[in-house]
Order: sequence, then structure tokens, then C-alpha cells
Amino acid sequence: MSNPTAAMVVIGDEILSGRTRDSNMHFLAGALNEIGIRLREVRVVADEPDEIITAVNSMRQSYHSVFTSGGIGPTHDDITADAIAATFGVAIGVRADAATLLQAHYDRMGQPFNVARQRMARIPEGALLIDNPVSTAPGFTLGNVHVMAGVPTVFQAMVASVLPSLVGGEPLLSQNLRLLRGEGDIAADFGALALQFPELSMGSYPFQQNGQHGTNLVVRGTDATKINNAMAQLHTLFDSAHAPSNTF
Amino acid sequence: MSNPTAAMVVIGDEILSGRTRDSNMHFLAGALNEIGIRLREVRVVADEPDEIITAVNSMRQSYHSVFTSGGIGPTHDDITADAIAATFGVAIGVRADAATLLQAHYDRMGQPFNVARQRMARIPEGALLIDNPVSTAPGFTLGNVHVMAGVPTVFQAMVASVLPSLVGGEPLLSQNLRLLRGEGDIAADFGALALQFPELSMGSYPFQQNGQHGTNLVVRGTDATKINNAMAQLHTLFDSAHAPSNTF
Repeated sequence: MSNPTAAMVVIGDEILSGRTRDSNMHFLAGALNEIGIRLREVRVVADEPDEIITAVNSMRQSYHSVFTSGGIGPTHDDITADAIAATFGVAIGVRADAATLLQAHYDRMGQPFNVARQRMARIPEGALLIDNPVSTAPGFTLGNVHVMAGVPTVFQAMVASVLPSLVGGEPLLSQNLRLLRGEGDIAADFGALALQFPELSMGSYPFQQNGQHGTNLVVRGTDATKINNAMAQLHTLFDSAHAPSNTF
Repeated sequence: MSNPTAAMVVIGDEILSGRTRDSNMHFLAGALNEIGIRLREVRVVADEPDEIITAVNSMRQSYHSVFTSGGIGPTHDDITADAIAATFGVAIGVRADAATLLQAHYDRMGQPFNVARQRMARIPEGALLIDNPVSTAPGFTLGNVHVMAGVPTVFQAMVASVLPSLVGGEPLLSQNLRLLRGEGDIAADFGALALQFPELSMGSYPFQQNGQHGTNLVVRGTDATKINNAMAQLHTLFDSAHAPSNTF
């Protein structure tokens, strides 16, 4: 498929330590697929400059766009902006337009725009600001890398700010058939069907729910007619025989 | 820190398409940190042999152990075992002990041990089986790579099977101070404190909950006394002044 591709870097000591469960990956995956951009890889790395630089450098060369989440706040552990500047080999400093936005925000709140908060106006040279309607402090885009906050509400707002600037493609459509049968029961027929539709991607995902075991068969692709045809064949193959099963 | 390190590869078209939200990463992070193994990196890759091979090959050389989740079932899209065999350059085929386990399982269930299910007995040469008390089909360990199922209940059972074989280290301890203040208010003092405790890791994480904005200050490390000392100083710095704030 020739759809644009994307990757994500989660700057994530909090995720890797098990304290927080990431939700930004799931949000971004859904948002990108809706506009036909394929999220192809995600890396969760530690809050360390070398790790961030290595991951971003590798991914910005392999994918059309890269999204990062986390590490752009006012505290000492917020190192992402500096790491991105180092990745591109450009200077970084407090930028007037970002500082003006933040100054006005903290004036409205009756809070000081202190040295720590000025840190959030440090933007690598040549970047475009990403609008943050939730809490003002901007993200930024440098080359094909979009640098965004880790707080989910802010991350989501920044994704909404960035999406209109991206070139999308054909949305990835999918349909699902839920069977109360083990994967091993349907594997042969399902695999044979997948061979008949090389332009579709077919996956099977076992589940356990309320004491029942079963399998979700998922058909993905960009051609709605072909997906409908494949789903019709799946129904023919399996509808007459979805007796409950307790096996995988 | 000299603790053992680990990485994870999530074989994850289902995650990357946005259909499913991964939970295995969060579970593994917690389980490893409890026994003093540091999860240092996670990659979510597509269900494609080259992607799996590249990720596993890079990570098995950089970390003490690597865990994979997903892609070891009976259907055509289950390609992980073959990809791992290719990663190590070893042969793969149906192995007698794995087949015996599965045959007995399906006999008990009154289900055929058909060709698709035999696929789950395909194990790369030289691997050790990982016990699966949930649904029998084993995972396997080859070198320092532990290959496990994607279904969360099975993944978790396999992690429990593998953990006793791993060399752990000092558990990562952490304490948390929850403040109803913006990060920008506490950044200077918090950063100065972090400099006093170079052997601890201190992070700040803004939150929004029930209309309140605040910051979680997290102190992590392996030395409980030092963490207690740092927390005492954090309380002294901030307890007298946690007036609500609506700013970041």
C-alpha cells in the first residue's frame, strides 16, 4: 500500500516503570488511521537524550512523519525539546512568539511567567509551533517530527492541531466477525480465504470474556467492496457452525 | 544503576491500527520492576517478519532480556515463531514435547489436534518451552528472548512462568507527592532538590482530574532511606503551600 506512514516515540520513564499506562499511542493510532496514515511503529524510550535522539533519528528517515509524546513541560526532567534540537543539529532558545503566548496565558491566570515556565518557550530553530488550546504551552514541528505533550488531554488537542497539515491517504477500513470458536477450528479456512484476497489483511484474535472463549476475525483494507466480499464469504464459512467452544 | 535490563517487542497490527489498546506492556513493566529488572525500551511493530527480526536483533544485543507478545497462535497471521527462528538463524519444526502437550490438551477437550493447532508446536531449535497453564500452547525462550502470547491472560501466565528463571536486582522503589499546584510553580525547587539526590530519579507529571489541575511528584530509586529523605524535603518545601492552582 502506498499510504503515508508514521511512527511514534513515547518519552516514557513513567510508562516503562509501570506506574502509568500509556493512552496516547491508542489515541494516535485511531486518529491517523481515520485519515489514511499508517502508524507502522511505536517506540517507548527512557527520559534520556541519547535514547530519544537515536529513536527519532532512525524513525524520521524511515517514515513520512514521526510523533513524540512527553517531556516538554517546565521541570528539569523535561528534556525532549533539547533532544530534538540535538537530533537535527540546530540551536534552541526561548522564542519570542512562544514566550508571548505563555506570558499572556499566565497574566490571565494571575500567575508568574517564571524561569521554569519560560522553559516551555524554548523551541528549536526552524520549528513551527503546534497550537495547544488546553494549556497554551505549544508543541512544535521540526522537519517531519511533531513534538507533543504527554498529558493525554493536551496530546489529543495537539494531534487535532497537527492533523490538518498532514497529507492523508485512503482510510484503513475494517470489519469484524466474532465467533465463539477456537482459532484452531477456523484457521485452515480462514488462511485459505486470506490467500484469495492478497490486497486485504486478515487477522484472528482470540478472546476470553464472561467465561466464553472465542475468536475475532478482522478484515482490513482500503477497498470497501473487497472487504464486503470477504466478509460475505466469512459468514458463509462460519455462520452455520458457531457452536460455543472452550478451546483456543 | 547496574540492574539487569529488559526490552519488549509487541507484535501488533491490532495495536497499530487502533483497534485494540495494548495492556501487556503495562503488565510486564510492573512485573519486571518488582524483581529489579529495568524495562528500558518497548517497540510495537507490524506483523511482518522483517520488522520483528530487526527489532528483536537490535534489542537482544542491547538488553539482558527481550520479551515478545503476540503472533504465536494457529492462524496464518501467526508468524512470530518463524521470525524468531530466522533472527537466530536456526531451524524450526514441530517439536515432540510441545506436540504431546497439545495433543493431550485437545484430547481432553474432545477437539481435533488438527494441522492448524500443530502449528503451535512449531518451536525453533534450541529453545526452552514456556509453560502456559491457561491454554497449554507453550511460549518459548531462545537465548535471551522470551516469546509469549498476545492474549493478556495467557501473556500474564507466561510472564509468571518465566520470571523465576531470571536474575533480578534491586527493586525500583518509588514514592509520590500529589500537589494541587502547577508544574511551573514547583519546577525550580523540585529541580534543585533533584540535583541534591543524583542517585534518585525525580519526575513531575501534571494531571487534570475532576476539574482540578495538579502535579504528581515522583521519586524513584533503590535506596529506601534516600527516598524517604527526599520525600521529607519535598513535604517541607511544598506542604505549607499547596493552595489550589488551575495552571500548568
